[in-house]
Amino acid sequence: MKDKYNEFHEWYDEILEKADIIDKRYPVKGCLIWKPYGYKALKLTMNILKRLLEETGHEEVYFPTLIPEEIFALEKDFLEGFSGETFVIEGTLSKRLDRKLLLRPTSETVMYYMFKLWLKSYRDLPIKLYQHVNVFRYETKHTRAILRVREIASFIEAHTVHATKEDAEKQIREAIEIYKKFFDSLYIPYIILRTPKWDTFAGAEYNYDFFTVMPDGRAIELGSVINLGQKFAKAFDIKVQMADESFQYVWQTCYGVSERVIGVLLSIHGDNRGLIFPTNIAPIQIVIVPVIFKGKEEEILSKCRSIYEKLKSEGFRVHIDLTDRSVGDKYYYWEMKGVPLRIDIGPKEVKQEAVTVARRDTGEKILVKDEELVSKLKELMEDINRNLYERAKKWLNSNIHTLIDISDKSKIPEKGIVKVPWCGRDECGLELERRLGKEALGFNPEEKAHGKCPICGEKAETWLYLSKKY
Amino acid sequence: MKDKYNEFHEWYDEILEKADIIDKRYPVKGCLIWKPYGYKALKLTMNILKRLLEETGHEEVYFPTLIPEEIFALEKDFLEGFSGETFVIEGTLSKRLDRKLLLRPTSETVMYYMFKLWLKSYRDLPIKLYQHVNVFRYETKHTRAILRVREIASFIEAHTVHATKEDAEKQIREAIEIYKKFFDSLYIPYIILRTPKWDTFAGAEYNYDFFTVMPDGRAIELGSVINLGQKFAKAFDIKVQMADESFQYVWQTCYGVSERVIGVLLSIHGDNRGLIFPTNIAPIQIVIVPVIFKGKEEEILSKCRSIYEKLKSEGFRVHIDLTDRSVGDKYYYWEMKGVPLRIDIGPKEVKQEAVTVARRDTGEKILVKDEELVSKLKELMEDINRNLYERAKKWLNSNIHTLIDISDKSKIPEKGIVKVPWCGRDECGLELERRLGKEALGFNPEEKAHGKCPICGEKAETWLYLSKKY
Repeated sequence: MKDKYNEFHEWYDEILEKADIIDKRYPVKGCLIWKPYGYKALKLTMNILKRLLEETGHEEVYFPTLIPEEIFALEKDFLEGFSGETFVIEGTLSKRLDRKLLLRPTSETVMYYMFKLWLKSYRDLPIKLYQHVNVFRYETKHTRAILRVREIASFIEAHTVHATKEDAEKQIREAIEIYKKFFDSLYIPYIILRTPKWDTFAGAEYNYDFFTVMPDGRAIELGSVINLGQKFAKAFDIKVQMADESFQYVWQTCYGVSERVIGVLLSIHGDNRGLIFPTNIAPIQIVIVPVIFKGKEEEILSKCRSIYEKLKSEGFRVHIDLTDRSVGDKYYYWEMKGVPLRIDIGPKEVKQEAVTVARRDTGEKILVKDEELVSKLKELMEDINRNLYERAKKWLNSNIHTLIDISDKSKIPEKGIVKVPWCGRDECGLELERRLGKEALGFNPEEKAHGKCPICGEKAETWLYLSKKY
Repeated sequence: MKDKYNEFHEWYDEILEKADIIDKRYPVKGCLIWKPYGYKALKLTMNILKRLLEETGHEEVYFPTLIPEEIFALEKDFLEGFSGETFVIEGTLSKRLDRKLLLRPTSETVMYYMFKLWLKSYRDLPIKLYQHVNVFRYETKHTRAILRVREIASFIEAHTVHATKEDAEKQIREAIEIYKKFFDSLYIPYIILRTPKWDTFAGAEYNYDFFTVMPDGRAIELGSVINLGQKFAKAFDIKVQMADESFQYVWQTCYGVSERVIGVLLSIHGDNRGLIFPTNIAPIQIVIVPVIFKGKEEEILSKCRSIYEKLKSEGFRVHIDLTDRSVGDKYYYWEMKGVPLRIDIGPKEVKQEAVTVARRDTGEKILVKDEELVSKLKELMEDINRNLYERAKKWLNSNIHTLIDISDKSKIPEKGIVKVPWCGRDECGLELERRLGKEALGFNPEEKAHGKCPICGEKAETWLYLSKKY
């Protein structure tokens, strides 16, 4: 196994395939096979977000994948933003179609076309919908397993419509809270930044992105919350009659998260022995390994089975390894696959009416009495998750550097995120990107900077965050 | 509302839109929007099948949507069977691709390409996988909402690989049992027929289809179970080393079901007042309607809310209608939406510590004491489902006609399925199709016919089932 921090990409590619998360030998670049173990983790992950959306009144829908070109083209910035990435269908294997159909890179245009038909009165608002779908983007940058793909297999996009600007802004705050809870439950620490104007989502007024730092020191976007203002409402002519009988354009927001989050969390929590899953999304939470001694086979296996049945009936995702591999191989294998807890049962454990529990995150082993096992496992699970989060948080914090003076090139950190005092003007932001050789991630409008903008020398309004980026 | 039996297509189109199942005003033919109410029913339906597949050891995976043309073309019959239906991508909005990518109409080719890489030894077998995806077929026949679409939004396809022919045949039997349980739990009656040779699935040895009869008397296929034999194994060169060290081609099966099943079940169970959902897939199982009388508002609403909370905590999908529509309008609306049970609460119910429960299927109303409500509702739900199934079964049975003499055209039923004695030869089967003006659905190999084949006069081997078909 490669070193996670020094050879991150090699480590990442190796572990994803070895641990049966994905197979990237599929012969279309940027398209992956999700294997059962990886897909299970992905589903557990996305289900957390779906539950959070349902709890806040979002309803699930399904809109078509195929978009007529003329509808896609209605919002000009959107068309321009996505044109290079959007696949076009012109026919079948045996026939030309009479018009071009596009594969959705995201669903604003198909949804908003219908919203125009659905909405009559402010009483029909708000609309809060989401869908869990595949979307397609012809990425021209280097593709990377899970993190940057051409078919996004698992995209959860929410779209909302409101009668007033204030309601839309309130919705942005709700969406940010939902995503906070989501990433918190994956034990991924993050910072939330407003995208600078020159990088705003196509067709949007502004957007907030969640970022974290990968083991190679590059920032990665986890999810995006977008205030569309009235731009799409105007492009798609979506108006409602208000209480005062006037007709007004509606206000819209959208927000999305993809399977990328699971690529990120595997990267962040893993170590040089392989993956480490937080317990809530681990496809297998506990693996039982029989430690067989000659003459004791029957009592050991029988205890393994009874512990297995007990844990299963308690709702744990538990697996018992009855293959004929050696005990050492089994340890190595399940550690690599990231199973958070292992239970060893040998003659000692049988005799003492106990089991040995090994933590994947720390390697610690403890003997636990059978009757205390369930409560101890629950306690250990919480502790593992807390530990994963604290390690990750420490990593993120150690990778955010404040940089007041940019004149000394040698003091500009190569890795991680730098925050630089900024006057707030586009031209200075773009110049900061150029001089630091990093991309602007955004700024926090509520975080006031001290000092001066290093480009123009004016008083700094805020901090601009910059980093090499995925 | 139209008459379900005499104006089925008008009834169907009207109710699907009125009840918020789908919206078909989307401007690409054969592509639908699934609205929250309909999508919830679809998910509940498909989850039943996913559970059945998981219980029998199938694991969920995800394979790419985009298929390189050269891989798609490896199995010749498959290519020919799907070429007219398969969408082709040749570029993005701004660039040509260097090769053609196809949109999956079904996933044999992408999966089997990978199986070749995965499989080494008979010990790797069996493989039992499934995926729940969208697939695309450029249907040239008339499209119909849910029943015949160009984007199948919800397709569950299972694919299995076996070391021997016998294992594959055993798998076919397991798949048939799974589908039986699935359609049984939707209360859809069916017949299972082996497809005649000339209509077999592209690339298959043989397949079995599940059929039922729609309210207009046409047969519809609900699902298909396919024995692929070694055809794909040979085309994709999928071999494993056997116990005797020889290398052998593997044996494969596949089976699939789409959202079509929900279009069928809504058609079969509905009536002239609208939809009727079986309780297990009803997005709302019980609706509570307050029957307000002046001066009693508070006690009535308070009772409605407490009954609502109680039923919710018991796990029912319950809704309380607090809109300002009239009671009559509410009745009409929720009946149309197919909610299986309604609870009315007015002054009488408050006084008697009871509620009035109305059944959607029979219209029957009964007064139920509050303390007996939960158990009575469970009993009624079972009874509604049983009744829906019995009605549907009666319909199916009355639409299967035995036809010994085909010479008197006036005796050939126009609607429903006819079974005709058949010698088993293709040429006679095709001639039967022509003379009856119906399509052959298939035959049951275990059902011996009496009499003679009406075409060649030879002894009948079995019955050929024919019908007008969706």
